[in-house]
Amino acid sequence: MKTTGGSDAAKRRAGERAAERAEDGFVVGLGTGSTTAYAIDALGRAIDDGLEIRGIPTSFQSRQTALEASVPLTTLEEVDGVDLAIDGADQVADDSTADAYGALIKGGGGAHTREKLVDAAADEFVVVADPSKLAPTLERSVPVEVIPDAYSVVSERVRELGGDPTLRAAECKDGPVVTDNGNLLLDCAFGSIDDPEGVASTLARVPGVLEHGLFVDLADITYVGTDDGVETREY
Amino acid sequence: MKTTGGSDAAKRRAGERAAERAEDGFVVGLGTGSTTAYAIDALGRAIDDGLEIRGIPTSFQSRQTALEASVPLTTLEEVDGVDLAIDGADQVADDSTADAYGALIKGGGGAHTREKLVDAAADEFVVVADPSKLAPTLERSVPVEVIPDAYSVVSERVRELGGDPTLRAAECKDGPVVTDNGNLLLDCAFGSIDDPEGVASTLARVPGVLEHGLFVDLADITYVGTDDGVETREY
Repeated sequence: MKTTGGSDAAKRRAGERAAERAEDGFVVGLGTGSTTAYAIDALGRAIDDGLEIRGIPTSFQSRQTALEASVPLTTLEEVDGVDLAIDGADQVADDSTADAYGALIKGGGGAHTREKLVDAAADEFVVVADPSKLAPTLERSVPVEVIPDAYSVVSERVRELGGDPTLRAAECKDGPVVTDNGNLLLDCAFGSIDDPEGVASTLARVPGVLEHGLFVDLADITYVGTDDGVETREY
Repeated sequence: MKTTGGSDAAKRRAGERAAERAEDGFVVGLGTGSTTAYAIDALGRAIDDGLEIRGIPTSFQSRQTALEASVPLTTLEEVDGVDLAIDGADQVADDSTADAYGALIKGGGGAHTREKLVDAAADEFVVVADPSKLAPTLERSVPVEVIPDAYSVVSERVRELGGDPTLRAAECKDGPVVTDNGNLLLDCAFGSIDDPEGVASTLARVPGVLEHGLFVDLADITYVGTDDGVETREY
């Protein structure tokens, strides 16, 4: 379910632009994924040049990337707040005339629960993307993290809501993907999602659901890396 | 945070009445707590007399009680549905003129996430209680299960919502209570809760929250054991 597409150069441009938003003293949420990794690398270089920030990783992977880039780390418990979060997305709603403009689908990497925790806590949440992630209407499957006991019941409920759930299988071990939190993932196809706010609200209330991958009214800015620059969307 | 009060005889009456609702072939959700344990014991005796049911426990504790009572067990994955769930409550909204009539606060035993999963899946959800659990308006603290990383951020959000969160401390080990799911519990005092539906909806959407202890529009019947009988509430 990890998204691909988008050139490395485009992803790097978006990530580097986002990293420029960090200022001395900032606590920075560090998202997961290939584009965000470029942002973390850029933060590491800025730290080498004197920038003083602390990072809060959103996953095992982003923690490893941050350690390699020598970004000093902290935790949500240790700080008063998060100034900036930088994170990728699997799909970004890009119709500026729609209510859903700037809504996201995340969770292809299975880390959306901790990502949402950090992104929602941030004063400013910056999304980094490449053009392959933009769509007029969200239509990718929505990853839903569920406690192991709940996957069959939640699957049934998703079908009642008009979705088609698939338990995400692991490629490198037998059985299902297990998240960093020890849970399972249902990738739920709803077709074209005209009302992400409504779907988000409904999914959040289904018993057994820890967190779904719809991020509505959270993003403040998206930087879209292209072949020759960076486009900005502000919400 | 476990609730006390209510005589053992009253609890037994309520539990035994609830057990009478089980019919041959039923899949029965088995809640957690002292009153429900009487229901499970009664189910075990009925099984000895020929009743054919299978139980789905909602916690380590209810599984142990069911095993001791020789109730055959199954899981949510193995069944097509749950016919009946029997579960206790820490507080039951008992003003029949209010919208919140029959809303519950659960989670004093820390098992409300799996309880809600099973109770919500059941065709009929029967609550067992004693008079000490009834209140015109819900006012106990609402237990909220959160992933460990999230407790500080969720606490802040609960304060913004007008609540007063307390991380539940363990009495039999150092540090916090850890749930059967490996998470932490915030007991959130909101004072008198006039709109449990609204609070439930808001809490469900807070990132990092797995499940809260407000059960709204889930209960079908409450059996209230008293000193000399059982009162019935139907919703």
